[in-house]
Amino acid sequence: MSGYIAEDIDVEELRRRTEVATGLAGRVRELVAATVVTDVDDHAIAAAQRHIEAATALLSQQRLPGSFGVRFNTDGTKRVWGNAVVGARNPIAPPVQLVDEGDHLWAEFDLGPAYEGPAGLVHGGVVAMILDQVLGSAAEHAGAPGMTGTLTIRYEQGTKLGPVRVEGRLDRVEGVKSIAVGTVSTPDGVCARAEGIFILPRWARGESSERLRNSLGDG
Amino acid sequence: MSGYIAEDIDVEELRRRTEVATGLAGRVRELVAATVVTDVDDHAIAAAQRHIEAATALLSQQRLPGSFGVRFNTDGTKRVWGNAVVGARNPIAPPVQLVDEGDHLWAEFDLGPAYEGPAGLVHGGVVAMILDQVLGSAAEHAGAPGMTGTLTIRYEQGTKLGPVRVEGRLDRVEGVKSIAVGTVSTPDGVCARAEGIFILPRWARGESSERLRNSLGDG
Repeated sequence: MSGYIAEDIDVEELRRRTEVATGLAGRVRELVAATVVTDVDDHAIAAAQRHIEAATALLSQQRLPGSFGVRFNTDGTKRVWGNAVVGARNPIAPPVQLVDEGDHLWAEFDLGPAYEGPAGLVHGGVVAMILDQVLGSAAEHAGAPGMTGTLTIRYEQGTKLGPVRVEGRLDRVEGVKSIAVGTVSTPDGVCARAEGIFILPRWARGESSERLRNSLGDG
Repeated sequence: MSGYIAEDIDVEELRRRTEVATGLAGRVRELVAATVVTDVDDHAIAAAQRHIEAATALLSQQRLPGSFGVRFNTDGTKRVWGNAVVGARNPIAPPVQLVDEGDHLWAEFDLGPAYEGPAGLVHGGVVAMILDQVLGSAAEHAGAPGMTGTLTIRYEQGTKLGPVRVEGRLDRVEGVKSIAVGTVSTPDGVCARAEGIFILPRWARGESSERLRNSLGDG
């Protein structure tokens, strides 16, 4: 369970840090998008590269010893800033910001040119990546968390780059298995449906549900 | 089929452009990793952010009208630089560089902190994303391309952040369906197994296999 870290950060200070992290990730995300579709000459690319190297050097002056991990604060919040789908400081993450609707979770966000697979379409693997996270979060949210055992995606039509909606909910629990289902859709309708089977690991079967919610469901 | 673009670029010029694009994406990828694990103060973050904004402004002076798309050159090569898994100019892509072993494809690469899900582990969705690409490419490579119909991933153990190997091969063809299989493994052994069913779209069923290989299998 390395990488699970307990912290004691003042709530206001945490809010401020989150704002800074979100701003930074947002700017890097814009740079990622500009990189994918740039059409400037080599001279401009070389100049941009010098700025990028300078930024990396500044951010690398001090770094965490490993990955960001999963951090629990004394106020009960959990930070997964490095998470590839929902991480506030991860420029790879769209990021997906899940809204709690009681019996299900949903999110709406834009997937730009950096998420392309077939021409003009979201990469089928990106669709799968997002569904894995949303189904895992839905199972966790419903109090039935687990590690992904099996994930099945059925693609019904191509997912156009642009606005995307994802939904996920816990469908049923069978012993140590939680089965969650969800969809990815665009203004064209449902593009993919997923079913995920999440399994409570052997080490977790005696744990309280609160402690479990803190250690599982991160994708 | 918008976003499928025919080009006529000199081979030497294309080689040079690829080198520039790969260099740029590599630098942005380093910045993405530094962003996820930075531990510098707000002052350094603000300074880095100014460099990032300057780089984005330079790269945005001229941009492609839409996404990168899929580009075919007169020398027979295909460019998918925007692809989220294999794209040479996409900083989100690890990138996975597939090696052709005749009856199967494989790749070895590192997944750092930007691909995290559970603490210290690769996001299960990232594992799925990579397998979708590799299975699709394997089906395409074996002359039986298609759009992903169903993707099933079975997770056998957590995939530690670090060196990863992926393999994919065409297992069988059943009418318009190609079934490809593959694995993701680390020094700990196989972490996930996948089966993908790729379906030849109706519009493609009268096409030559060469033309199909050019329009399908991009994820």
